Amino acid sequence: MQFSINRSVFIKHLNDVQRAISSKTTIPILTGIKIVLTDAGLMLTGSNADISIESFISATDDKNELDIGSTGSIVLSARFFSEIVKRLPEDTMNLEVKDNFQTEIKSGPAEFTINGLDANNYPNLPEIDTEDQLILDVSVLKQLIAQTVIAVSNQESRPILTGIHLVLDQGELMAVATDSHRLSQRKINLDLNPNIHYDVIIPGKSLVELSRTLDDDIDTVEVRIAENQVLFIAGATSFYSRLLEGNYPETSRLIPTSSTTQVEFSAPVLLAAIERASLLSHESHNNVVKLALNPTENNVTIYGNSPDVGNVEEALASENLSGDSLEISFNPDYMKDALRSFGQTQIHIAFTSALRPFTLVPTEDNDHFVQLITPVRTF
Amino acid sequence: MQFSINRSVFIKHLNDVQRAISSKTTIPILTGIKIVLTDAGLMLTGSNADISIESFISATDDKNELDIGSTGSIVLSARFFSEIVKRLPEDTMNLEVKDNFQTEIKSGPAEFTINGLDANNYPNLPEIDTEDQLILDVSVLKQLIAQTVIAVSNQESRPILTGIHLVLDQGELMAVATDSHRLSQRKINLDLNPNIHYDVIIPGKSLVELSRTLDDDIDTVEVRIAENQVLFIAGATSFYSRLLEGNYPETSRLIPTSSTTQVEFSAPVLLAAIERASLLSHESHNNVVKLALNPTENNVTIYGNSPDVGNVEEALASENLSGDSLEISFNPDYMKDALRSFGQTQIHIAFTSALRPFTLVPTEDNDHFVQLITPVRTF
Repeated sequence: MQFSINRSVFIKHLNDVQRAISSKTTIPILTGIKIVLTDAGLMLTGSNADISIESFISATDDKNELDIGSTGSIVLSARFFSEIVKRLPEDTMNLEVKDNFQTEIKSGPAEFTINGLDANNYPNLPEIDTEDQLILDVSVLKQLIAQTVIAVSNQESRPILTGIHLVLDQGELMAVATDSHRLSQRKINLDLNPNIHYDVIIPGKSLVELSRTLDDDIDTVEVRIAENQVLFIAGATSFYSRLLEGNYPETSRLIPTSSTTQVEFSAPVLLAAIERASLLSHESHNNVVKLALNPTENNVTIYGNSPDVGNVEEALASENLSGDSLEISFNPDYMKDALRSFGQTQIHIAFTSALRPFTLVPTEDNDHFVQLITPVRTF
Repeated sequence: MQFSINRSVFIKHLNDVQRAISSKTTIPILTGIKIVLTDAGLMLTGSNADISIESFISATDDKNELDIGSTGSIVLSARFFSEIVKRLPEDTMNLEVKDNFQTEIKSGPAEFTINGLDANNYPNLPEIDTEDQLILDVSVLKQLIAQTVIAVSNQESRPILTGIHLVLDQGELMAVATDSHRLSQRKINLDLNPNIHYDVIIPGKSLVELSRTLDDDIDTVEVRIAENQVLFIAGATSFYSRLLEGNYPETSRLIPTSSTTQVEFSAPVLLAAIERASLLSHESHNNVVKLALNPTENNVTIYGNSPDVGNVEEALASENLSGDSLEISFNPDYMKDALRSFGQTQIHIAFTSALRPFTLVPTEDNDHFVQLITPVRTF
């Protein structure tokens, strides 16, 4: 194999596939990047046990400046190879595989020779065939991931909860995540064949990496789902993730449909107050803040407390406060994550009692997005 | 004590004194910030065993919006207090010390009460009286620190080498640091009374912190030296450091005065090549790169090697190569530090033999700045 290529194009693709590569893998060859050169172009692959990323550099796109001497393949240490490529002195680089998988990398006066591995020993990626076309807007998918991934569990004790449950039915895509203390649910209406039905659980970590891989200059992503794998195709990049096996718990009945106390806040204003209150609650062993809602006097106050450091109290600017008066305590970190997922919008919070979960929804659209938080018993 | 103040002004001064505060201190009260309010204004103090920083907020400067209710003093946990102040909701904040050193911090609707400590238990700063006026340009002092601190030792086995040796004599200020593998020496001519003489060793860490404290909007710093302390006064900030006790080794005789091989490089070009070569040398247990200089063929080549990963070789663009041919190996990290200290200039390197220290000086001024590096024996 021998080729020369525009170095910045190569670095961009290298960065994409490198997201999949972990130095902690137990399969040594997966610490490498697989490089396969055909007459059509250069395919880079990175993988770990959970995700695999392929990125293709076409021989026919002039800006890639891909000049093919001979086709072939090699696996090179991801860590060194990418460090080397990033530090080469000139705009173009030349790569040539010599005897015994020794690989020569040249750019201007700099000449590296590094040890490679036989690409035939690299594991094959799954083949995913499907006839159903599922195309999503990149921005919609990224928002859906950001809004639900906060509630994904990072405890391996219930592995199923480390995933996001995605259900496509009747043209509606629903994403749910819960770590059993909080839950996030997002629905999107898609212009799709209503007969397509999917019910899968994708690891939260995979979707976070997918989000990072998706460039803003690409508009849509194609999703292909097979029995135990999902493939996202965006431009020249293919992103594979394994699916989680098992049944996701039934979550719809967890979301309360009635409430006894209701209030509205500006999400960023409430977030700033929660951040202040949590400065002290973080020092306390139970890390809770308390909200006191008093509809008859039309006031809401937040309290944070740490016996060692001190306490904080703040009257909050709220709107449309109604129902029963209530004192409720919760983990401020869950509240901060939830509030950040709403951005700059106005939100509606509905409480039932001091020990029952409460919900946050956007005031303007209470049907497509809900965050649920379970309070903490303090008495 | 009670006052209100412009919050961004207060944060700026808080940040300055906080540099001196370490959570690792063995003296509990030093984890706090001392706040002393007099009719003249507000003095903030932070300290650890080595350095102390005072910052003064004048009552007469309108932009501080300092409104004094009653004078007094308190010590507040640096970590919490500054986090709280930074997250307060409004532009102004109010601070009031109540009974038992409980301190109330208010801004808009937010109201914190935190536990304070009696300021009378805070250690006193040293008093430094001197009649000698020593004024330095902030930019010159910062450059001098940056150029020499790289050679300071971080080994506590020879504590004296953790300092920078400063000698003021005949109107010339000389700064030297060495960790016994390398040495950096910088000289500055000052427009001073030539009878002022100082010979002190300041901890390298203190000078790094001083550099960070010195804002670019202040032009000069006044230096006051006493028996075991040095004080730097810049604008409203006073920076105290202890001095290291003992005799600094005689370093002038370490710098060779003759050479047998000479060459010139652009510092940033050589730096980039060393960074490439060190990618592989870092993986080798002895971490060296080799330079081969061949004046008869007018070429210089750098080599890096790691048995596990591979090797690199690069022909370097040099000028005025002369003298004997030479192969010499050295730690590339020392070379990188040295080259960075020269910025974008052309440098002259003078070698004596493969086992004797070599020197780097700016081509245009070989008298005021020298970096010395001891090579590594590889045979």
